[in-house]
Amino acid sequence: MAETMTGAQVAGLQRDYVMQSWSRQGTPALPIARAEGIYFWDYDGRKYADMSSLLVCSNLGHQLPEIVEAIKEQADRMCFMAPAYASEPKSRLAKMLVDIAGADFYQRVFFTNGGADANENAIKMARMVTGRQKIFSCYRSYHGSTNGASNASGDWRRFAAELGGMAPGYVHFMNPNMYEDGYTRGVDDEAVTRDYLHRLEEQLQYEGPDNVAAILMESIVGANGVILPPKGYMEGVRALCDKYGILMICDEVMTGFARTGKMFAWQNFDIRPDLITFAKGVTCGYVPLGGVIVSKAVSDYFTDHVLQCGLTYSGHTLACAAGCASVRYYLDHDICAHVKRMEGILKPFLERMVERHKCVGEARCIGLFAALTIVRNKETRELMAPYHAPDSVMPRIMARLKEKGFSTFGRETNINICPPLIITEEELNEYLPILDEVLGWVDETFCD
Amino acid sequence: MAETMTGAQVAGLQRDYVMQSWSRQGTPALPIARAEGIYFWDYDGRKYADMSSLLVCSNLGHQLPEIVEAIKEQADRMCFMAPAYASEPKSRLAKMLVDIAGADFYQRVFFTNGGADANENAIKMARMVTGRQKIFSCYRSYHGSTNGASNASGDWRRFAAELGGMAPGYVHFMNPNMYEDGYTRGVDDEAVTRDYLHRLEEQLQYEGPDNVAAILMESIVGANGVILPPKGYMEGVRALCDKYGILMICDEVMTGFARTGKMFAWQNFDIRPDLITFAKGVTCGYVPLGGVIVSKAVSDYFTDHVLQCGLTYSGHTLACAAGCASVRYYLDHDICAHVKRMEGILKPFLERMVERHKCVGEARCIGLFAALTIVRNKETRELMAPYHAPDSVMPRIMARLKEKGFSTFGRETNINICPPLIITEEELNEYLPILDEVLGWVDETFCD
Repeated sequence: MAETMTGAQVAGLQRDYVMQSWSRQGTPALPIARAEGIYFWDYDGRKYADMSSLLVCSNLGHQLPEIVEAIKEQADRMCFMAPAYASEPKSRLAKMLVDIAGADFYQRVFFTNGGADANENAIKMARMVTGRQKIFSCYRSYHGSTNGASNASGDWRRFAAELGGMAPGYVHFMNPNMYEDGYTRGVDDEAVTRDYLHRLEEQLQYEGPDNVAAILMESIVGANGVILPPKGYMEGVRALCDKYGILMICDEVMTGFARTGKMFAWQNFDIRPDLITFAKGVTCGYVPLGGVIVSKAVSDYFTDHVLQCGLTYSGHTLACAAGCASVRYYLDHDICAHVKRMEGILKPFLERMVERHKCVGEARCIGLFAALTIVRNKETRELMAPYHAPDSVMPRIMARLKEKGFSTFGRETNINICPPLIITEEELNEYLPILDEVLGWVDETFCD
Repeated sequence: MAETMTGAQVAGLQRDYVMQSWSRQGTPALPIARAEGIYFWDYDGRKYADMSSLLVCSNLGHQLPEIVEAIKEQADRMCFMAPAYASEPKSRLAKMLVDIAGADFYQRVFFTNGGADANENAIKMARMVTGRQKIFSCYRSYHGSTNGASNASGDWRRFAAELGGMAPGYVHFMNPNMYEDGYTRGVDDEAVTRDYLHRLEEQLQYEGPDNVAAILMESIVGANGVILPPKGYMEGVRALCDKYGILMICDEVMTGFARTGKMFAWQNFDIRPDLITFAKGVTCGYVPLGGVIVSKAVSDYFTDHVLQCGLTYSGHTLACAAGCASVRYYLDHDICAHVKRMEGILKPFLERMVERHKCVGEARCIGLFAALTIVRNKETRELMAPYHAPDSVMPRIMARLKEKGFSTFGRETNINICPPLIITEEELNEYLPILDEVLGWVDETFCD
């Protein structure tokens, strides 16, 4: 297919024919001509630094030759073979994923097309294995937009899935957000952890812990603002799971694949989930792929019982080839170590932003997974955009950053900074000052 | 990635590390080395004719150069750009899909990763547009395995999704299967249509038609046995939708893209659905892709209201490029006309099988979408495998066909015959006699 369309034509067809996610239809969308490394370019040749890895998926940047070549080679060999058959990329990738999760505890991978159906299938498996119904998940969370994943999600994107009625068996609990809850990180962790775990256990008791199949959590809450849990919290949740025979599902869709400086974010804590859901970084989005890594105990259950899960593209051949190339790149180039080095630049910079700017309430950063909480008033901690309230300020901030070539996204009152993990020190030093500058404009324009 | 593994290694890793759909784990899976046209080969060099297009997805056969080249070209250019941006393949494909559905009535496409989430999003849209809750769908149906799609599905694969409780707002009705219901096709159509529509309207009235957002149906029921509706039935369902302000969603995941000799199977009837869900044939499975084509009326609703749907890979760039190449091939090579010609061979052959074999109760064939109902006794119409009963005969039939190089699948008491649409007269004439031979063995071995 020769590239024959102009940017205006591409944008015109999008406006007229494409249903745009989470939007009114017919609004203009920027047409993108090409992408490479941490950058992409529009049809007018304007260059944008992708400081969010799109939707926190292009972990290894755009058009990495190793992944592109793997896709092309596999495309020449065999694009797709059905799930009932074994194929080399699927076999290889399953083993690689079990190995990076820990082959002493994990056994098998169920492949899906993305993160939502990864969570759907983890939930189904947890119910089958335990014979219990209820799924506990966090209010401050997002797990995808299919009915099961959406009902498990906490933020308001869940509401549309509830139009037909709330799906049964989903229970939400409040997870800590230290800053918004009025606490100080590094000071109040122990008290917050104790309090939130106490409330969670209390809620489990009122729901009947024997009815709870799983607690599903993002290892670190992502789209809702990179909410780092207080020290000891994740370990406490794991202990509650163990106490009551509940399975722990960690959603690593956004946090997996070196994003936090570990291959999985749960590896930052002293826990092991029973099921790990993944997507995004497994192929860096080059080909859609997701899945669930399950423990030996979960796997063993399904050697005696039929797994009541399936989908046409489970273990898609081309997608798994892209996955093999991606995982190999993370390992061969020790991307985790690089991420920790870059964290050494990003984290102190963001901490300086808190000191320097009236509008920055808190900075959270682990690896290259970071967000700033934007406030109107730092003393009262009044958020720039209260939860799910009409807001025009945050979109203006995002637009101003983008005008200056710093592309990212945020939800509610947060600005996410999650660049591709291959970003260099030079690139960080070139682009972070733009953020500093725009935050200064926010201080002057919107703060008390 | 050099191909360095033996078939035994590929199979061994699959057995040990891959969670296999709808199966007990640890059972052996045949490793496949390559695929081309209507064939695929195992690592021992055995050749199989793919008489089911895998899971009725590889409509244009395996490794079609035009699709492979389009994937490789797009992989070189840009594998993925986020849904918020316009990209050439997404823009092009959206317009192509609206054009083949009918640009006088349809307006936009919402892209997903596959068929299940296509149906999930169609259901969400129908509820948003109508402000109603209930979704009517058929018992004899399958719509995918995520929670919403699975609760809409009729066959027993739904049960696992019900472990947490049945999702609210789903109502099932019985759709006709003339043979299993004891009728004769071409004779009783009018009576069956009248009866089933009467029962459906009665059920709508008892559920409150003003509460019904949509009737979701496969245009022709696929996985449950290519159940051709009696004459007038689909038109009658459309009329009930119009009468009560209910949206009609046609699931074209299996039937779309020339499978029946029309680009969409609903084009065989005198109806137009409000929403069309698709997947599989849109890319022939080469890259995962699905979506929903919506009418102008549905589209217009979402110019005034925010579409509460979204997913990371909506309009995936590489997938849409594969989609453009596939749709262009269907059109440029007039695959619909070829399918009608091949139907001229397959359909009379299958009708001869009914005459010739004690075990063949009925043959259904439209385009290259066909199934045989296998019976133990043709006079009593006793099915070889009663619904959802433990059965060892049908798997033995499938295995015997496969041993002879005729690969297909079936569910319950059906054998599906749905070869790639590019199959030639010579290839049909070479492989159909194998089916004849195996049916003879079934007659002798299993029939009364």
